[in-house]
Amino acid sequence: MKEQFLLTPGPSPVPEDVRLVLGKSMIHHRTDEFQAVLKDVHQGLKYVYKTENPVLVFASSGTGAMEAGIANFFSPQDTVIVIEAGKFGERWVEIAQAYQLKVVTIKVEWGQPFNKEALKKALKENPAAKGVFATLCETSTATVYNIEEIAGVVKENADCILVVDAISGLGQDILKTDAWGVDVVISGSQKGLMLPPGLSFISVSPKAMLLLSTAKLPRYYFDIKKAHAAYAKDDTPYTPAVSLVRGLQVSLEMIKQQTIEKRWELYGKMAQALREAFKAIGLESFSKSPSRSVTALQCNFDSGLLLKKLRKEKSLSIAEGQGHLKGKIFRVAHMGCISEQDIVKGLSLIEAGLREVGYKDFKVGESLKRFQEVFHG
Amino acid sequence: MKEQFLLTPGPSPVPEDVRLVLGKSMIHHRTDEFQAVLKDVHQGLKYVYKTENPVLVFASSGTGAMEAGIANFFSPQDTVIVIEAGKFGERWVEIAQAYQLKVVTIKVEWGQPFNKEALKKALKENPAAKGVFATLCETSTATVYNIEEIAGVVKENADCILVVDAISGLGQDILKTDAWGVDVVISGSQKGLMLPPGLSFISVSPKAMLLLSTAKLPRYYFDIKKAHAAYAKDDTPYTPAVSLVRGLQVSLEMIKQQTIEKRWELYGKMAQALREAFKAIGLESFSKSPSRSVTALQCNFDSGLLLKKLRKEKSLSIAEGQGHLKGKIFRVAHMGCISEQDIVKGLSLIEAGLREVGYKDFKVGESLKRFQEVFHG
Repeated sequence: MKEQFLLTPGPSPVPEDVRLVLGKSMIHHRTDEFQAVLKDVHQGLKYVYKTENPVLVFASSGTGAMEAGIANFFSPQDTVIVIEAGKFGERWVEIAQAYQLKVVTIKVEWGQPFNKEALKKALKENPAAKGVFATLCETSTATVYNIEEIAGVVKENADCILVVDAISGLGQDILKTDAWGVDVVISGSQKGLMLPPGLSFISVSPKAMLLLSTAKLPRYYFDIKKAHAAYAKDDTPYTPAVSLVRGLQVSLEMIKQQTIEKRWELYGKMAQALREAFKAIGLESFSKSPSRSVTALQCNFDSGLLLKKLRKEKSLSIAEGQGHLKGKIFRVAHMGCISEQDIVKGLSLIEAGLREVGYKDFKVGESLKRFQEVFHG
Repeated sequence: MKEQFLLTPGPSPVPEDVRLVLGKSMIHHRTDEFQAVLKDVHQGLKYVYKTENPVLVFASSGTGAMEAGIANFFSPQDTVIVIEAGKFGERWVEIAQAYQLKVVTIKVEWGQPFNKEALKKALKENPAAKGVFATLCETSTATVYNIEEIAGVVKENADCILVVDAISGLGQDILKTDAWGVDVVISGSQKGLMLPPGLSFISVSPKAMLLLSTAKLPRYYFDIKKAHAAYAKDDTPYTPAVSLVRGLQVSLEMIKQQTIEKRWELYGKMAQALREAFKAIGLESFSKSPSRSVTALQCNFDSGLLLKKLRKEKSLSIAEGQGHLKGKIFRVAHMGCISEQDIVKGLSLIEAGLREVGYKDFKVGESLKRFQEVFHG
């Protein structure tokens, strides 16, 4: 059976050096050996997050840490503002509603950039708002949002925190947690951090920490006060996902060696070259503010059919459109350990798939050539 | 560096065939390939649980599924009864209190069996009680509780469900979810199921399913209604911990091959032989209703010192006493893939460690000999 080749926005491929660690014999988590691993992981996460705030590790997928980002800081009937620009913005709304918060939603047209004036207006109209929720890279539309600008607006409100979902963006899209003043940043293991799914992360600023003792929403497994007390001793309140944490030690070290700045640059260049490559064969980017982590292409054929062909016949996984974009876009991810040559391989398979679904009006190899030109230009 | 040898009640050792799967290349979770894995896993969990109820899989440690066992079935101020006989019984109390339930606690002396009359009395005194919480194997005292009897009592109350923490017991201690009528059973991956930590499980009876639409406590990540809808399609609502689920497919198949009944028999015999082995060198079992998953020994020396010596100098991990038993007992686990010969190796190391902490009044090899005699007797 052919190995699956993943250009999906999570899970992303896991490098061999990480996979070898995942299969090692089990160690106990209450030992000096594991404490040293967790210490490295805590330092490494702070490095990737660009923060001096604690970054806590949960055994859960990213959605679990999103829930932590709500349950720990608010009380029932608190007002929060959600910038909703896609499927993952919708998730913020759903979680906040599940926790009986009053949700003010700023709807942004999918794929369009966000105008900070809308946030200023919403904060003016809702002076009691206790939190603003945003997304770094909205995976469903492959759009990056200007978190620096959003943070600048939120910062002017002493009693309001900014919570950002950076699950798919972290590692490729630029994120400067402390320099921008982002209070809470959520992420997960299976995207830029090059691990299987199963770990989630949350950074907490001093301003957000102050809310832990007044917030009345119930929480236990995702309790940040308890997780933070354990963090201070490089420990966790409940049994950690030992094998994944050991893998994370390795992948964080890889990122450190490469440096996060070089990664931002590399994936920025890769994303731009990929957009130009698709343009050369007549496919336009869906997003007007495209991410460095994933690229969405508009198409006039059924993207679902393309995906199925690529997956079944060529062992390549890319992603469908979600919600009302189902069938209308397809998405190609470039995160984690995806290299220039992985994209070349992907384009070769995608060109073949396009022909098979009847999209034929382009010269063979044109997208690969253009990708190389722009990438090395 | 010497490989750690784990006789701890979680994490337990992971067999090589499972470890090799953990390190395989990543696959995407929304594929026929992964759906087939999840289908096997769902069937396998039902087999191990002895149930026809759905058994849902979460990416979290066991405590997450315990929280799911509270947040999905109750409303604020509901009354619940907790049978609290150790550290994990205390966890039920803590979670229920975090969710603002009225908690009636039946305290059982640590290590002592439970008398069902106490439960009958509590239910009579609290006719509005909506749930009873119990533990199959209380890991902190190595004590197994008679869930069949407890279920018999709870069943007489039409509006009350029984929720059982079987995290450390599942796979060794006898559990017959359907035959006994247990509504909700929680477990985790890193004990009898021979995986690293990071997955939790929850089975839900039709009686408990009916409560999902009336229960008002907030939940999102651990929402059973959503997880159940996905389960019906062998899917999960949020990204599953792909590598661990693939490992679980392998470990569940191992259990099926061996049969769960043979496992109950094997670990029953192993636990009994181990108690006799320790008795032969003057160490008595702490529990008056000892589990098949873990054995606790009383000692008149500092058990913390023994543990440290074994871990640092002999690479053997066993467990300490918890709470007021710290320093006063030590615990040896026999779960998952622990074999007769693993116990023999463990006893050899423990005998050496005992001498080094000054406990010397026994003949070398006496515990090993006695273990073999009883095991093969």
